[in-house]
Amino acid sequence: MTKEIVTAALIMIGDEILSGRTVDKNLNFLARNLTAFGINLREVRVVPDITDEIIKAVNEVRKKYDYIFTSGGIGPTHDDITSDAIAKAFGVELFLDEVAKKILIDHYKEDLNEARLKMGYIPQGASLLDNPVSSAPGFRIENVFVMAGVPKIFEAMFEAARKELAPGKKMESMEIITPLTEGWIAGDLKNLQKKYPQVLMGSYPFDKGTSLIFRSINYEALEKSYNEMVEIVEKIKSN
Amino acid sequence: MTKEIVTAALIMIGDEILSGRTVDKNLNFLARNLTAFGINLREVRVVPDITDEIIKAVNEVRKKYDYIFTSGGIGPTHDDITSDAIAKAFGVELFLDEVAKKILIDHYKEDLNEARLKMGYIPQGASLLDNPVSSAPGFRIENVFVMAGVPKIFEAMFEAARKELAPGKKMESMEIITPLTEGWIAGDLKNLQKKYPQVLMGSYPFDKGTSLIFRSINYEALEKSYNEMVEIVEKIKSN
Repeated sequence: MTKEIVTAALIMIGDEILSGRTVDKNLNFLARNLTAFGINLREVRVVPDITDEIIKAVNEVRKKYDYIFTSGGIGPTHDDITSDAIAKAFGVELFLDEVAKKILIDHYKEDLNEARLKMGYIPQGASLLDNPVSSAPGFRIENVFVMAGVPKIFEAMFEAARKELAPGKKMESMEIITPLTEGWIAGDLKNLQKKYPQVLMGSYPFDKGTSLIFRSINYEALEKSYNEMVEIVEKIKSN
Repeated sequence: MTKEIVTAALIMIGDEILSGRTVDKNLNFLARNLTAFGINLREVRVVPDITDEIIKAVNEVRKKYDYIFTSGGIGPTHDDITSDAIAKAFGVELFLDEVAKKILIDHYKEDLNEARLKMGYIPQGASLLDNPVSSAPGFRIENVFVMAGVPKIFEAMFEAARKELAPGKKMESMEIITPLTEGWIAGDLKNLQKKYPQVLMGSYPFDKGTSLIFRSINYEALEKSYNEMVEIVEKIKSN
């Protein structure tokens, strides 16, 4: 049986994001793609390159959501500690995967050294995630997909991961953009939210007015509530 | 006595970020500014507009770090639930702050309605954070700074918050950019990291090579380790 609501979380392992050196691009990519696919991203965490912090974050979220994605920390250098942390989070050992080893040998040939070979080690019970960009694979263990931090590779690995995801019902959204500021709309919007509890109504102020986003997996309620709100906005504007 | 290492976390309350509708800008702003100010951002969480999730996140991080910043959910609409959630996290009531009320009356005049007045309610024991952009203030309760999600207002409120922050020793950073890919450098870098444990050495691959970032509050060790790494990189390149 397919679940109606399927949930996910993202854990970014990244000192470079926390220090402000790097502007993250993976969050929005994943959020848009999961939403379009019928999976609700419910939580994001950015944690530093510290093994215990990664273990804690992974173990806190992996029981709470259907799928977990991690980004960063699976390269060849000493600060790439994600694979080791994930293995510890699951209480298993790392081992050199034969398929990963072959991929790395084929890619690096005589330049395959100890550091590069490290990328072939994955936790027991994990399966590989294809990396068409730079060869070194990501992996999946249970509901956790461990992917690279470099956006191009993160995106490619997500394509590989997507084949293994079972989405829920897609949440559709409708938007009303109005020059009215939030304070004019708030009362009516609150009443409408009470009338349609199956629709998530969000109000987002911006420079030139307000964006109202209605989201639901109940498309009939979505359209009805949207139409009522359009009328309400028109009425307030004409007053 | 000033602490050497001062830490912070950011909690973003934002369905719009999790759905991918909005691209977050506050994380990088805060990360850069805290780093430059001598405060280490150690964790970021994005949680949905759900009271219990906000309470849980705030209570988990506020004992762990020196300062907590939140963004989003303090406007006039029904989905603005942050102030209420923060009050509950601290086990106190919301009350209409007299100064906030006056600010809102002066700003909205005859257009001040119930929804807008809601923005004057803050938790007991909280103090206001000035908002020169759109008047409705943020607030601080103990070590938690509650700020708006709109980037311009978030940034203005951070300026107000900054006056109340006691920074630690500033972490300086030095960068080496090299066309060498990580695999060539990894072994020597690992040894150098062992030699200088007081320096955080990060290695970040990008399209055209690798960026090595060395960070430390020990400036002497930072410069020494940086110089040694420059030599190592030159030696590898000439081989």
